[in-house]
Amino acid sequence: MTFDAKLDGYLKDKKKLVDQALEAYLPAENVYPSALIQAVRYSLFAGGKRIRPVLCLAAAETVGGDIKTTLPVACALEMIHTYSLIHDDLPAMDNDDVRRGKPTNHKVFGEAVAILAGDALLTEAFHLMARTDLMPEIDPAKLLVVVRDIAQAAGYDGMVGGQTVDILSEGRQGDPDTLNYIHYHKTAALIAVSLKSGALLAGANTVEVNALEAYGHHIGLAFQIADDLLNVEGNKELLGKNTGSDRERGKLAYPALVGVEVSRQKAFELTQAAIEDVALFEERALPLRWIAEYVVERSS
Amino acid sequence: MTFDAKLDGYLKDKKKLVDQALEAYLPAENVYPSALIQAVRYSLFAGGKRIRPVLCLAAAETVGGDIKTTLPVACALEMIHTYSLIHDDLPAMDNDDVRRGKPTNHKVFGEAVAILAGDALLTEAFHLMARTDLMPEIDPAKLLVVVRDIAQAAGYDGMVGGQTVDILSEGRQGDPDTLNYIHYHKTAALIAVSLKSGALLAGANTVEVNALEAYGHHIGLAFQIADDLLNVEGNKELLGKNTGSDRERGKLAYPALVGVEVSRQKAFELTQAAIEDVALFEERALPLRWIAEYVVERSS
Repeated sequence: MTFDAKLDGYLKDKKKLVDQALEAYLPAENVYPSALIQAVRYSLFAGGKRIRPVLCLAAAETVGGDIKTTLPVACALEMIHTYSLIHDDLPAMDNDDVRRGKPTNHKVFGEAVAILAGDALLTEAFHLMARTDLMPEIDPAKLLVVVRDIAQAAGYDGMVGGQTVDILSEGRQGDPDTLNYIHYHKTAALIAVSLKSGALLAGANTVEVNALEAYGHHIGLAFQIADDLLNVEGNKELLGKNTGSDRERGKLAYPALVGVEVSRQKAFELTQAAIEDVALFEERALPLRWIAEYVVERSS
Repeated sequence: MTFDAKLDGYLKDKKKLVDQALEAYLPAENVYPSALIQAVRYSLFAGGKRIRPVLCLAAAETVGGDIKTTLPVACALEMIHTYSLIHDDLPAMDNDDVRRGKPTNHKVFGEAVAILAGDALLTEAFHLMARTDLMPEIDPAKLLVVVRDIAQAAGYDGMVGGQTVDILSEGRQGDPDTLNYIHYHKTAALIAVSLKSGALLAGANTVEVNALEAYGHHIGLAFQIADDLLNVEGNKELLGKNTGSDRERGKLAYPALVGVEVSRQKAFELTQAAIEDVALFEERALPLRWIAEYVVERSS
């Protein structure tokens, strides 16, 4: 098999596990209030790549752990990511009409229900992570560390902080420090904690946890730069969302700040650093190396 | 001292503990991104009565526990309540301009930051509840039960579900079942879990936990009916928000559905049921009896 075929198979297998678990954890569409549940499911099953949960499972696998044990936390990470997309797309925020080739949540369900669907997903993520019945093998004290880490990465000192600075920087003269703050907090923090929590739950030691978290920070930043590049040069059909929107909106982004070539070089360097981070795992880190390369080479 | 003076002193003492703890747990206003932190602090310190955290502490005290141990969870409950107010006030939801006598969060900070401040508060609530360093005496497995219960009461099967039905019922012909669903989920669920979690953390047995949770459901429903009555007959200055807004907006509310007199009678019966629920605690339930009576007699 080629590199692409192997990576593709790996991602598909893991995505299937995540999708099945999400389906099992979520209420059916006809559960009352069904407008809310439909809105939640609409965005959660809109065809996301499941990068964060796949990285959580991959981290557990890399340190020799049982990936099934990490599924509830992996799915919670996807719920947090999905809530952030629903809220980011709102008219008061990025005002996006299309996401993954489909109308955004508020376009289908209205703004009020979209806000509430985001709130419900964020809350359900923490509900799921506290379901010790689904994770009887996990030490409760360790699970609380994971909950705390994920909440920190998602909150004012993480994703929400990054999104705030992103929104408030629109149309302003940007600087690299601010852009790095945005990328690190808005994107890399949740990706890094996805790897860290998978490693912790699988019983990794401190050196292993730190290596996987560092890998996460590096590919998280690379992922965001690649996203910025796709917004400039990507194919709208493949992306399933509008291109050129960063520029139109005066959003702080890598290509506008340092140019396309320097951005590409930066993404490449981050990928190499990520691959270095996981060198200690030798052959077991093969999927993580594939994913690091995929992150910057993807077309959607 | 009169009844009012004793209750007043009790509520003030407990509120002070909660306010001091919230201050200690939150970042300072100048922490980056300061627009977000200011928005979070603006609503959290807008002069709320701290009913939910006070009930959490009161439950712990009633079963003879150490109330200090429950402070992080009590404060998390207030964060969840405050996030829900910020999001409920948004233009896409209830579109309220005034709350507790001050402009609502989005009026001061704009819609985008208000949405993000709500998201940050909800996330920080779960971060705080996972901070075992603040609660070394609490068994981690028990803390996870509390997190799970609170997340359930706050999510699609609790507060968010109730708010969804509330919003979607506006301007429609209401029925008592729908109104009861709204009140139970939107208000009573979080109040009941405030008592339940205080009791659990303080080491209550099952009979005690159930009694306090039942008390919470009863006063939670009474509290919401009293709120509906205040919206019809209350004093705008004392309330710090506009009256008559439920009617204008075609909101489903008790007085409109069954009349003012029947609503008053219902609130009274619920209060008596709540007082019955905690009879087993005898003299130790005195503050809970005061609070039950206060809930329906308050003017703001």
